[in-house]
Amino acid sequence: MKIVVIGGGACGLKAACRARRRNAEAEITVIDAGKYPSLGRCGLPYYVGGIVNELDDLRKTLAGVVRDVQYFKKIKDIEILTETRATEIDRERKVVKIVKDGKEDEIPYDYLVLSTGAKPIMLNLPNADAEGVVTLFDPEDAEKILDMWDEGILEKAVIIGGGLIGMETAEALSNLDVEVTIVELLDHVLPALLDREMAMLVQSHLAEKGVKVLTGSRVTEIIAKDGRVAGVKVDGTKEIEANLVLMAVGVRPNVELAKACGLELGETGAIKVNEYLQTSDENIYAGGDCVENIHLITGKPVFIPLGSTANKHGRVIGDNVTGGKSTFPGVIGTTIFKLFDLNVARTGLTEKQAKELGYDVITALCPGPDRAHFMPGQRPIRIKLVADAKTGKLLGAQMVGLGVVDKRIDVVATAIQMGATIDDLANFDLAYAPPYSTAIDTLIHAANVARNKRDGLYKTISSFEVKEKIEKGEDIVLLDIRSDEEFRKFKKIEDPRLLRIPLEELRENVDKIPKDKEIIIICQIGSRAYDAQRILEGYGFKDVKVMEGGMAFWFW
Amino acid sequence: MKIVVIGGGACGLKAACRARRRNAEAEITVIDAGKYPSLGRCGLPYYVGGIVNELDDLRKTLAGVVRDVQYFKKIKDIEILTETRATEIDRERKVVKIVKDGKEDEIPYDYLVLSTGAKPIMLNLPNADAEGVVTLFDPEDAEKILDMWDEGILEKAVIIGGGLIGMETAEALSNLDVEVTIVELLDHVLPALLDREMAMLVQSHLAEKGVKVLTGSRVTEIIAKDGRVAGVKVDGTKEIEANLVLMAVGVRPNVELAKACGLELGETGAIKVNEYLQTSDENIYAGGDCVENIHLITGKPVFIPLGSTANKHGRVIGDNVTGGKSTFPGVIGTTIFKLFDLNVARTGLTEKQAKELGYDVITALCPGPDRAHFMPGQRPIRIKLVADAKTGKLLGAQMVGLGVVDKRIDVVATAIQMGATIDDLANFDLAYAPPYSTAIDTLIHAANVARNKRDGLYKTISSFEVKEKIEKGEDIVLLDIRSDEEFRKFKKIEDPRLLRIPLEELRENVDKIPKDKEIIIICQIGSRAYDAQRILEGYGFKDVKVMEGGMAFWFW
Repeated sequence: MKIVVIGGGACGLKAACRARRRNAEAEITVIDAGKYPSLGRCGLPYYVGGIVNELDDLRKTLAGVVRDVQYFKKIKDIEILTETRATEIDRERKVVKIVKDGKEDEIPYDYLVLSTGAKPIMLNLPNADAEGVVTLFDPEDAEKILDMWDEGILEKAVIIGGGLIGMETAEALSNLDVEVTIVELLDHVLPALLDREMAMLVQSHLAEKGVKVLTGSRVTEIIAKDGRVAGVKVDGTKEIEANLVLMAVGVRPNVELAKACGLELGETGAIKVNEYLQTSDENIYAGGDCVENIHLITGKPVFIPLGSTANKHGRVIGDNVTGGKSTFPGVIGTTIFKLFDLNVARTGLTEKQAKELGYDVITALCPGPDRAHFMPGQRPIRIKLVADAKTGKLLGAQMVGLGVVDKRIDVVATAIQMGATIDDLANFDLAYAPPYSTAIDTLIHAANVARNKRDGLYKTISSFEVKEKIEKGEDIVLLDIRSDEEFRKFKKIEDPRLLRIPLEELRENVDKIPKDKEIIIICQIGSRAYDAQRILEGYGFKDVKVMEGGMAFWFW
Repeated sequence: MKIVVIGGGACGLKAACRARRRNAEAEITVIDAGKYPSLGRCGLPYYVGGIVNELDDLRKTLAGVVRDVQYFKKIKDIEILTETRATEIDRERKVVKIVKDGKEDEIPYDYLVLSTGAKPIMLNLPNADAEGVVTLFDPEDAEKILDMWDEGILEKAVIIGGGLIGMETAEALSNLDVEVTIVELLDHVLPALLDREMAMLVQSHLAEKGVKVLTGSRVTEIIAKDGRVAGVKVDGTKEIEANLVLMAVGVRPNVELAKACGLELGETGAIKVNEYLQTSDENIYAGGDCVENIHLITGKPVFIPLGSTANKHGRVIGDNVTGGKSTFPGVIGTTIFKLFDLNVARTGLTEKQAKELGYDVITALCPGPDRAHFMPGQRPIRIKLVADAKTGKLLGAQMVGLGVVDKRIDVVATAIQMGATIDDLANFDLAYAPPYSTAIDTLIHAANVARNKRDGLYKTISSFEVKEKIEKGEDIVLLDIRSDEEFRKFKKIEDPRLLRIPLEELRENVDKIPKDKEIIIICQIGSRAYDAQRILEGYGFKDVKVMEGGMAFWFW
C-alpha cells in the first residue's frame, strides 16, 4: 500500500509516523517543499528573540536527535523528499505530480494526505516589495531578521497587526533592543481573541515594556528608500520610521492543490473534511493548517490553525489511512501566548463573539492571586468568564496575568468541551495547596462571581460605563472603600464625585452616603466592594453597583 | 433569625460570611475554641519552614488586613466568640451550651452550623506524653517546634507517617537543617495517595534531599530521657535518635458534640450530611473536616478533609441557612503538595484502589517534558493515568515531577468530574505555546498511550516485573535502544542479558536479536521503545514488550 503525504509539518509527519506504527509494510512518502521538514514553527519567535539558540533545536526529538531526512528513513522507514514541490493531484490516476530540481516526476498513491499548511497574508501596500518587508513564518524569515540585526541595520520595526504573531514578534524584537510599534486596525489588540477590557490589560503591559501600540489605525503605505524600508505611513498621513516592517495580519490556508483537483473547500476557504478528516475524495485525507474545523460550541466551521490541533489531526489520519476509524471532534479556539512577563490565554467564545451569535450571556470579571497570598512568588491574574445566561453553560474564558493562567484556561477548556456549567465549575475538586492556588481558587471564585450575578446578589457596572457616566457628568457617587494606604499607593479616580469611606468604617458612616443617588462602589479588585454593596442594600439603598474587577480594570 | 456556627475555620467562617451577604438582618455568632479563628492551617508547614514569616500572614485578607474578631464584627457584622468551648447542643430547646473563662452560658439558634473540624490522631505509644512529641496541626504546634529550634535543642526529628503532612513537615524541618527520618508502616510512602511506582519517585527525591525513609516499619516505642524525647524504637529493636517526634498518621473528625446530641454519623465515622449539607436534624448543617463526602466516582462516602472542600461547604451552608437550596455534589480526592523541588499531585482512584473496587483498569505511565523541549526552564514530569477498561472513563491520575503538574491534574480532575474518557482527553483543545506545553502535551500523550495499550498496539511490562524476571533468572533479552551517549550518561541495567542496539541501527541489526525469546525494550522514557516494539513486530517478532516509562521508572 502506498501512502503519500504532501507537507512535512506537524500533521503530515505525525500522520506518516502513526501510519508506520500501525502498518509495517506500507510505502510511506512525504513530499515537502522546504529544506527543514518537522521544524516547530511555533518556536521561531523564540529563535529570533535569542531564547532558542539553534534552528535545529526546533526539530530535535526529546532525546536531542535532529529529526532530519535520515532520522525518518532509519527509524521510521519513511521517505521524505525535501525541496520538492507537488504541482498537481491526478485523482483519476491516483498520482501526485512533483518537481524537484526542475525535474518532473509522478508518485502514485493509494491514500493521499494533504497537510499543505498555511501561509501568511501579505497586504498589497505600496512598496510592499521593498527589502525589509517580512513575515515571521518560515525559518528563512527568522534568518532574514537576524541577518539584518547582525548587520546593525535593524533599530526600529513596525508590526502590522496586533494579533498573536504580532505580540510574539514584538517581544522577540524587543529582546533584540529593537524599538517596536504595533499598528492595529481595530480598536484594541487581539480583537479575535480577547474582549476589549482584557485586551487593554495586554496593552498596558506592552506600554510598560516600551512597545508602542496604535489602535484604530491602518498602515496605508510602506515608505521605501533605495528599495529598502524606511518606514510606514499610517492613515495616509502619520509617518513612522522603521527598518523592518513585519506583516502579521494572519494566515491563509494553502488550498491551491486541493482546489485545482476539485476537492471541496469549506465556507472559511480552507479544505472541508468530515469527522474522519476525509476530504470529498474518500482516498484523500487532509489535516493541519489547511483544513477547517468544527467549533464545538457553535457547531460551525472555523479556520483556527494551531500546531497542537495539527498533531491531533495527524494521529487521526494515520489511523484512518491504515484501516482505522478515528475521529476528530473539533476545536474551541483555545490559545495562549507569553508576552514579556505576561501570560495571556483564552478559550471558547469572547463576550462579543457570543453576543454576535445570539447568546444571552452572563460574564464575570475576577482578578485574584494565582496562589495563597502568603506564599512568596504569588502573582496576580485576571479572569473573565462568559456563560450562557439561559443554561449556565460555560461559553468561554479569557485570562491575563503575571501569574499562572495556563492551568486555569485548560480547566475551562476541558469544562467547555464536556459541557460544564458555572455551577459545575464552582464545585470542581481542583488541586489545592498554598504553592499552587488559594483555598478557593481564583477560577472557582470567578464561577461564584458569575453565579452571584446570575442570582441577582452581585450588581455590577463596567469600568467603561463608569468612565462614560463620569464624562457625561451624571450625578453619581463614586464610593471608594479602600484603605488610606491603598488609596495613596494605587491608581485612583480623580473626580469630585468620589467619596471615600474605608470598608471597615462603612457601617458607622452609612448616613454620609446619599440614598437617592446611583452609588458605584470601587475597591482594588471588586470583592470587598461586593461586601459593601450588600451592606448598603441591607441599609435600604436601592441603586448600588460595584465597578466590576475594581481598579484592576481602570485604564485611565 | 439566629445563626450559630461552631468552629471558626474555613467552613464555619465562609458559611457565616455567605449567610451575611445573603441576609443583612440575621444574628450570626461563631463559637471558636481557639485564639485564632480564620487561620489558614495549610500554611503552617511554610511557617515552620521559614517561608511564611508571621503567623498572622495566615489569616490576612488579600488586601493585607488580619481577619480577627474586629474585622468580622466591623465588616461582616459577625460576632466571634474566641477561646469559647461549645459543650452541648440541646436540639429540643435549640440552644448551644458554651463555656468561656470557666463561665457557662447558652446561645439559642434557629440554624446551627457544625464546622468542628478534625484533630490529629495520636498513637498510643509508650512515652507518647514525653516533651517533644508533637503534631503539626494548630498554630501552637508550630510555635512549639520553632521554640525548640530557637533553643537549639532540635537537631534530629522522626516523623511517624509518610503521608501528606509527613511530607510537608519533612521539608519544613529540613529547611531548618534538622535531620529527618520518616517511618512509614506500609511498603511505600503516600500509600493512600499514590501507587507504588509513583511513590518511589517521591522516595528518590527524599533521598536526594537527605531525608531518610524507612518503609514497612513501625515505631513501637518512644524513647524518653528525663521526660524528653530521645528517640524512637522501630519494630521493637532498631533505635533512631531524635529530639522531636512528629505524629503524622492522619486526622479524625471532631464529632463528639454531634454524637452526644444524637446526630447521625456516617460509616467513615464523620458526620453524615445530605447533598444540602444538612445533618439528620433539619436545623443543623455541617461541613468542613468534620463531615464525610460522597466520592463522585464510587458513589460511596469518604473522609477526605481539605481546606478547599471546606470553603465550598461553607458557601453551600451559607446559602441554605438563609433560605437557599444549594448542593454540594462530592469530591474525587484531588490532592497536591510540594516536596522540595518536586510537585506531587493525584486525583480520583489509584490503580490499587480501582482494582480493589473491582474495576478492570487500563493504566498508562508517561514521562515527558512540561513544555517544549527547546524552551529554557523545561522540566520533566511523570504521569500515570488510570482508566476503566470497559468504558474508557478516566478513573484517576497521579503526577510527579520537577515540572508543572498542578495544571495537568486539574484538567484530569475536571475531566473525571464531567465523566470524560481517555478518548475525550486525547482530543481536548488545551492551550499550546512553547512556554506552556509541548505541541502534544504530555497529558494528551498519556491519554494516547492508554489508547494504544487498549487497542493492543503498545505492549508493556512494568519495571517491577522486569526486576523480578531478572532476579528469577528468566531467559529474556533486555534490549536497550538508547544512544551510546545516553547509555554512558544515565542509569543502566547491569545484566548479562542486556543487548545494546541504538534505535537508529535497529532495522539493520534485527538478525542479532533472538526471535524465540521474550524481548523487553528499554529506553529513557518509553516512547522510542514503542517505535522499536512496532519495528520488531513488523519483522515478525512475537513476544516484544516495552518496559513502561523506561529508565525513568527504574529504581534500583
